[in-house]
Amino acid sequence: MVNRSAETRKPRGHAAAALPSPWRGRQGADARDSKRDAVILAAARAFNNHGYHNTSLDDIADRLGVTKPTLYYYVKNKEQLLFECFRTGLEPIRAAFSDIGQSRQPARERLTVVLLRYAEAIASEFGWCMVRAEDLNLSPELQAHVKALKSEIDQGIRRLIREGIADRSIAPCDPKMTAFALAGALNWIAHWYRDNQALKPADIARAFVDIFNQGLRPRGA
Amino acid sequence: MVNRSAETRKPRGHAAAALPSPWRGRQGADARDSKRDAVILAAARAFNNHGYHNTSLDDIADRLGVTKPTLYYYVKNKEQLLFECFRTGLEPIRAAFSDIGQSRQPARERLTVVLLRYAEAIASEFGWCMVRAEDLNLSPELQAHVKALKSEIDQGIRRLIREGIADRSIAPCDPKMTAFALAGALNWIAHWYRDNQALKPADIARAFVDIFNQGLRPRGA
Repeated sequence: MVNRSAETRKPRGHAAAALPSPWRGRQGADARDSKRDAVILAAARAFNNHGYHNTSLDDIADRLGVTKPTLYYYVKNKEQLLFECFRTGLEPIRAAFSDIGQSRQPARERLTVVLLRYAEAIASEFGWCMVRAEDLNLSPELQAHVKALKSEIDQGIRRLIREGIADRSIAPCDPKMTAFALAGALNWIAHWYRDNQALKPADIARAFVDIFNQGLRPRGA
Repeated sequence: MVNRSAETRKPRGHAAAALPSPWRGRQGADARDSKRDAVILAAARAFNNHGYHNTSLDDIADRLGVTKPTLYYYVKNKEQLLFECFRTGLEPIRAAFSDIGQSRQPARERLTVVLLRYAEAIASEFGWCMVRAEDLNLSPELQAHVKALKSEIDQGIRRLIREGIADRSIAPCDPKMTAFALAGALNWIAHWYRDNQALKPADIARAFVDIFNQGLRPRGA
């Protein structure tokens, strides 16, 4: 069993670092986007370090040096903010699927691209929100949205496994169980990984993909 | 991503089944033990189905058809009850380590014994308490106890991996990362497995161990 408390965990390495201040100077659509991104990142750090229920919109506004009404310009409420953290964390994984869309590589190589990005995403500051969003009594509407996004990724991994079995780049296996095992190992990274340790997200990602590919049984045994 | 809400999840298959009634008839030390076991099982089912914060000692007493003061004869408070669920869930894994203690089998076979029992434990009604106990603001004393028990199992798995690399039954790998990957895949079972589905815990356990041993890359590739 490898786990850590979500409510009492130590801050991640740069969690205490000063946030960028997109409220100073810039204007226009780009500035609005970058302010929105800053709100989401500040929320992800706060939820990650103190837990969702222990974090208020006031806390997040304080971290950004703005007022709570300013936050309402970007998000409707705290639960929408959690959802945006979830969606932002998932974005690189969805982008990975998009990137491999036209590739002719064997399916195991395409799956590797997805798994590497998945591992890095979970080891990011959004990891906690990605794995815990569904546990936190979101509204039925947001809950359904979370499930749909998760299912899209789950089905994408299963499809790559099936394709890999077909093109013989993946050993015969149960695609559903294998997708559960891979996703479980990766999701659990959010429980133990802290970015103030020697291993960087890319190292973790590489190590996990090597373990998945290799298996415990020695080759030739 | 494969997950389900912990707070709104559907009851496991026999969660709604009537509980045994050890309060009728029997007396003595055996009867006390079986009553205590019934209290812990009822709590595990309630936490699993409704979440820890949504479950009161009154709810658990109701399920057992006893009064709340009766529960205080067995446990001090709700948090101790969560800890007992955690410890009970872990017991088969600790027993597996004990069982393989004197074995001369290759380390990968001994590890397989542990992983099978681990998977079955997580797919049991205690699985939710096993993976979530540390997230729930337990007292520092119980928190430390949870960490110590988890660490014991984590270290035991790493030791078996090191022994397996030494006796060549396990392919060279990073024991710490590999233990994290195995435990993560297994712990995540608590998020998606429901015992009203076709696969039984023993099937899941076997499928996962096969995936771990085999790896994605075909043999000979």
